[in-house]
Amino acid sequence: MRVPRATAASASFADLHRTDAPLLLPNAWDHASATAMARQGFQAIGTTSLAVAAAAGRPDGASATRDETLRLALTLGSQPFLLSVDAECGFSDDPDEVAQLARQLAAAGAVGINLEDALGPVARHVAKIAAVKSAVPALFVNARTDTYWLGEHGTAEHSTAETLDRLDAYQQAGADGVFVPGLTDAQEIAVLVERVDVPLNILYSPAGPTVVHLAELGVSRISLGSLLYRRALGAALEAVDAVRAGRTPSGRTPTYQEVESLAP
Amino acid sequence: MRVPRATAASASFADLHRTDAPLLLPNAWDHASATAMARQGFQAIGTTSLAVAAAAGRPDGASATRDETLRLALTLGSQPFLLSVDAECGFSDDPDEVAQLARQLAAAGAVGINLEDALGPVARHVAKIAAVKSAVPALFVNARTDTYWLGEHGTAEHSTAETLDRLDAYQQAGADGVFVPGLTDAQEIAVLVERVDVPLNILYSPAGPTVVHLAELGVSRISLGSLLYRRALGAALEAVDAVRAGRTPSGRTPTYQEVESLAP
Repeated sequence: MRVPRATAASASFADLHRTDAPLLLPNAWDHASATAMARQGFQAIGTTSLAVAAAAGRPDGASATRDETLRLALTLGSQPFLLSVDAECGFSDDPDEVAQLARQLAAAGAVGINLEDALGPVARHVAKIAAVKSAVPALFVNARTDTYWLGEHGTAEHSTAETLDRLDAYQQAGADGVFVPGLTDAQEIAVLVERVDVPLNILYSPAGPTVVHLAELGVSRISLGSLLYRRALGAALEAVDAVRAGRTPSGRTPTYQEVESLAP
Repeated sequence: MRVPRATAASASFADLHRTDAPLLLPNAWDHASATAMARQGFQAIGTTSLAVAAAAGRPDGASATRDETLRLALTLGSQPFLLSVDAECGFSDDPDEVAQLARQLAAAGAVGINLEDALGPVARHVAKIAAVKSAVPALFVNARTDTYWLGEHGTAEHSTAETLDRLDAYQQAGADGVFVPGLTDAQEIAVLVERVDVPLNILYSPAGPTVVHLAELGVSRISLGSLLYRRALGAALEAVDAVRAGRTPSGRTPTYQEVESLAP
């Protein structure tokens, strides 16, 4: 079992949401990617449930990867960076089970957790947030609403009003921050910044505002979600295509020794 | 437990080493990377021990990732491609334990295994190869010698004569193919092709001959080792640097839905 982080580290993670510049949180999927990002100067590293699911050959957002999520937290939690874990909806509808997961993640060394509502009942998500904060008060709970995320995929359309209702409920339940992935409209983002009391997290999108623009809008945390994992996969496919075609793959490629040096 | 592949699949993997063109074997590290490569038209996929080790935060080639290697084989072995597993030195000095691993990998669905000598005693590697072929005759054993691999890192210098002595011994022990990573000199490769009786596997290097040139030299199998994993990691670092600098990451990036579609 890994040694839990001291409370100071948790406090420090919350503090990173309240500085002049927003917290830019890259999302990793294994030890090497997390450590390499930390060595690029990122104090805090997130995980991405899409990568955890895709690595195991399971669907994302389907509560299919509780064990894999915990295993990744155990691999990363004792490393020299602050770790926030994407835990989908907590892999259970039972708030007590979600609280138990939060205890395990904190024991592994995580200082933050993302919990998504998947547009389920507000009361259920509120109960999960409250249960987690009661079980592990020091764990930074980033409460995600999927009003724009699922809408982006054409399955639903939700209003700013519904988003604010959900975020208000999650804040009141004790959420330390709120997260609205899929929202890329600058005006909408500005409205949310104005209206929510806790740090607002926005998912960076190549189709949305730059990190500089998001900072100007008052966003407190910018995460990259699955973008880096997806780009990594795409680059591997570009490279194998190049080799097959008789070309030399291009782009930054750490040496064998550089990758080996990422292990503790 | 996964259903073992039929013997026909194993025969087919051996056949892929004996066609007009060499077998180009990309090495994957998780379900998504393996499946995406298979969908690009690769019938056979290898794994890479560096990626397995780096993902877990362990050293490569140090027999530290037996469980992770088997877990990856269980994830990939039932998928619609031929799987060959990089098993370092078999994670044991005991031939019986290596044979037991080979049984487990075959039961998971693997049709091939790489076993490296790490420049240890020839007799020990011979005993491992013989034990594996005795336990699982249908498993394609690719016997690797590290005469050029470790030499590349400056720790040793070995001769063509020693390489041939090792390869001869491994062939006689029952190896279905032999592998000399780190060798990039065209003349040396041609000598080995001429002298060995089983298919010769060479590791592609951006600094060495192209795949077309390797094919002309008579190489039977070209693997990519850790190159794709290292390039994937490098591309993720490029992307996070770009986002941090306010630029839009470039290069092939599968969408969320495309990555989701890789799961069975």
